[in-house]
Amino acid sequence: MEVNAIFGKNAVTEALISGNREINKILILKTIHTDKKVEQIKEIARQKGIVFQFVGKDKFRDFEKYSHQGIIALISPIKYLDIDEFLEREDYRDSSVVILDGIEDAHNLGAIIRTAVCAGVRGIIIPSRRSVQVNSVVEKVSAGAINRIPIIKVNSIQQAVEKLKKSNWWVVAAEASAVDNYYDIDYTGMNFALVMGAEHAGVSKTVMNAADFKIKIPMITDFNSLNVSNAFSIIIFESLRQKLNKNFK
Amino acid sequence: MEVNAIFGKNAVTEALISGNREINKILILKTIHTDKKVEQIKEIARQKGIVFQFVGKDKFRDFEKYSHQGIIALISPIKYLDIDEFLEREDYRDSSVVILDGIEDAHNLGAIIRTAVCAGVRGIIIPSRRSVQVNSVVEKVSAGAINRIPIIKVNSIQQAVEKLKKSNWWVVAAEASAVDNYYDIDYTGMNFALVMGAEHAGVSKTVMNAADFKIKIPMITDFNSLNVSNAFSIIIFESLRQKLNKNFK
Repeated sequence: MEVNAIFGKNAVTEALISGNREINKILILKTIHTDKKVEQIKEIARQKGIVFQFVGKDKFRDFEKYSHQGIIALISPIKYLDIDEFLEREDYRDSSVVILDGIEDAHNLGAIIRTAVCAGVRGIIIPSRRSVQVNSVVEKVSAGAINRIPIIKVNSIQQAVEKLKKSNWWVVAAEASAVDNYYDIDYTGMNFALVMGAEHAGVSKTVMNAADFKIKIPMITDFNSLNVSNAFSIIIFESLRQKLNKNFK
Repeated sequence: MEVNAIFGKNAVTEALISGNREINKILILKTIHTDKKVEQIKEIARQKGIVFQFVGKDKFRDFEKYSHQGIIALISPIKYLDIDEFLEREDYRDSSVVILDGIEDAHNLGAIIRTAVCAGVRGIIIPSRRSVQVNSVVEKVSAGAINRIPIIKVNSIQQAVEKLKKSNWWVVAAEASAVDNYYDIDYTGMNFALVMGAEHAGVSKTVMNAADFKIKIPMITDFNSLNVSNAFSIIIFESLRQKLNKNFK
């Protein structure tokens, strides 16, 4: 079952504050332990005119598998952005986006969105097919970050890459077989799109061929098996380190 | 239900190859799609004299919630190491361990173990209470990494920190409120223990006070909410970058 809902105190608070998602109703379990967070949720909901209801366990039956902490916000489905809309939105400078070339796991997508927002990434590009879409697991794992960043859905990653390149974005593909290390390229002073590949298949060949930079994360053991969300964190925060440090090399 | 089992083709293969965990039996679903990985598992099991059985769906009923891909290895419980045993094992140089000060989420523990092995970390220290223990979710998420690194269980994190310091290990605590940035300390030429705090509570006060270095990951947005496994990845790979680059600053 796919549900359009946000689960848990932090995620619901985040959605309420950001106002980026239309919340239809908040359900609170009657037996909830009322703490500061719950009080804050009720207060913001009141201010924003969003209905909240105290309900019995039966209303939560469909949501048992989610870690809801007794609080759920029912929301409208996420609105995806078009790549052209995104590119026309503003005159980007020193910005980054991440392209997810066929991520299959909802936990990974949610974790990447969360890290991306922390790192100030401007958008997440996902393909409309052969990829996990934004579902309630993604929302939950993103800890509310999903409401802070545009999700750009494209029919073809290859076409998106071409459009980005035409708009003067540089394309950086992460691939275990690359020669350059991720810390050997200068991420400052450019707009770049970081391409992360699918869990097993990696970055697709056509996208690899179109990339301006190909990078790997060097390993010192023979266990070369970084999870994609952790690999993404390492690379995107290296770009941030360079920007904050302002002394590349 | 807690099960001592390893789920999925990659994790089972890894456990078979590493030989670090005693495998009692391998169960293969009769209806499995036999590919190269399954053939490899059968071949290694044969070589090592480990029994494998083709079984019906009913034998997999208890494991439905795990992503098992039709293959399960039943194993003996993990053997935890003592901190003294660990310290006496060898004369450590330029080594690192990670101390997890009360991690609650099995996904996070599994992801940290996986990244730690990739980064060549020498051990994972967890407290015996108020912390998630190694369970089948941790095993699965670690993608076999659990069999490659000692898990050191301690009754008191504080005592473990003292023992490490007496053995000339430096203690680096990651905490959002720290002043220094994680990339501003020199991780080369020392043994260090990186302390990561619980998901909500962070690093406990006594451990913070005992730390030689306190570091944070600087954020450029007001969404300061990195997941602990991603924060760990960023810091530990910065230490690796410094070691590989051999030109800190």
